[in-house]
Amino acid sequence: MKDFEEKTLSSKELYNGKIIDLVLEDVELPNGKQGKREIIKHPGAVAVIARTDENKIILVKQYRKALERAIVEIPAGKLEKGEEPAHTALRELEEETGYTTQQLQKLTAFYTSPGFADEIVHIYLADQLVPLEEKRELDEDEFVEVMEVSLEEALHLIEKQHIYDAKTAYAIQYLQLQEVLESTK
Amino acid sequence: MKDFEEKTLSSKELYNGKIIDLVLEDVELPNGKQGKREIIKHPGAVAVIARTDENKIILVKQYRKALERAIVEIPAGKLEKGEEPAHTALRELEEETGYTTQQLQKLTAFYTSPGFADEIVHIYLADQLVPLEEKRELDEDEFVEVMEVSLEEALHLIEKQHIYDAKTAYAIQYLQLQEVLESTK
Repeated sequence: MKDFEEKTLSSKELYNGKIIDLVLEDVELPNGKQGKREIIKHPGAVAVIARTDENKIILVKQYRKALERAIVEIPAGKLEKGEEPAHTALRELEEETGYTTQQLQKLTAFYTSPGFADEIVHIYLADQLVPLEEKRELDEDEFVEVMEVSLEEALHLIEKQHIYDAKTAYAIQYLQLQEVLESTK
Repeated sequence: MKDFEEKTLSSKELYNGKIIDLVLEDVELPNGKQGKREIIKHPGAVAVIARTDENKIILVKQYRKALERAIVEIPAGKLEKGEEPAHTALRELEEETGYTTQQLQKLTAFYTSPGFADEIVHIYLADQLVPLEEKRELDEDEFVEVMEVSLEEALHLIEKQHIYDAKTAYAIQYLQLQEVLESTK
């Protein structure tokens, strides 16, 4: 298999922000010609499927400025500098749902948009949820509303495109896929 | 359901690029305080599950500079200005696989990373593939290698994280999900 590597000839940071950085790179293409790549650097993120004792999945509704509307997602958040993804996952679970757990399991990870961004999302499954005695504060610019649905309801929400962000659909479908693969073993 | 709308107070374009733009917005949060949002504007993209007569899915391997390595994906590409997604899907299918079709069906669409980007990916299913008599040229900065796998192999590639970009995993899992939902009706 060829790898078609693109060598970096020069790299310039055009923006260094709170969440993302923008880098413009001049590259040497596999045919020897030159090209430009616009790249968003992102610290990475986590998303958590929180599964209640009644086998429901916790969803949060929050406003997404990039889309100019509120959408339904699983709890998620970006990694703080040097933070272990599992730690971020527990923090976001606690902040967004009011539950904690000692049963946090890494399911998978994926790249959201490799054409222009290096963002990776680590997906966790949280079981045996315990209500926090003292609620944790959300980030000061974060506002969410919480709801619970069954796995079947969640799958139908994906089918109807009521759930349609990558991490939420990926996580829920991954959970479903595990069950399918398990049942065919 | 509350929508927690964030009103735009001011908006500034910091970068206007070939594929992405970067906009910085000052917003009024639901609690009356102010916040900042970094937003990537993207023209949107398509991804195509191309299914051969032997019921194989066509994958393409290509170098992704943002990740500094080659990864395996389904054929995909960004929308040109004003272009219908179905037209982009057919063009990318032809350029990247050497097949064309009259059986192109929209499956779904999703947002790759609503926390900072407005990118939407439209997913199509292409059946009854016909080899092009004359191969179409790839974009001048695009280099791909083509392979074919069964749906079951593709699912295992996802499970092993050999496939792990959002659009490819979403599309393949969505196809699998349709079959599961169909079988439980």
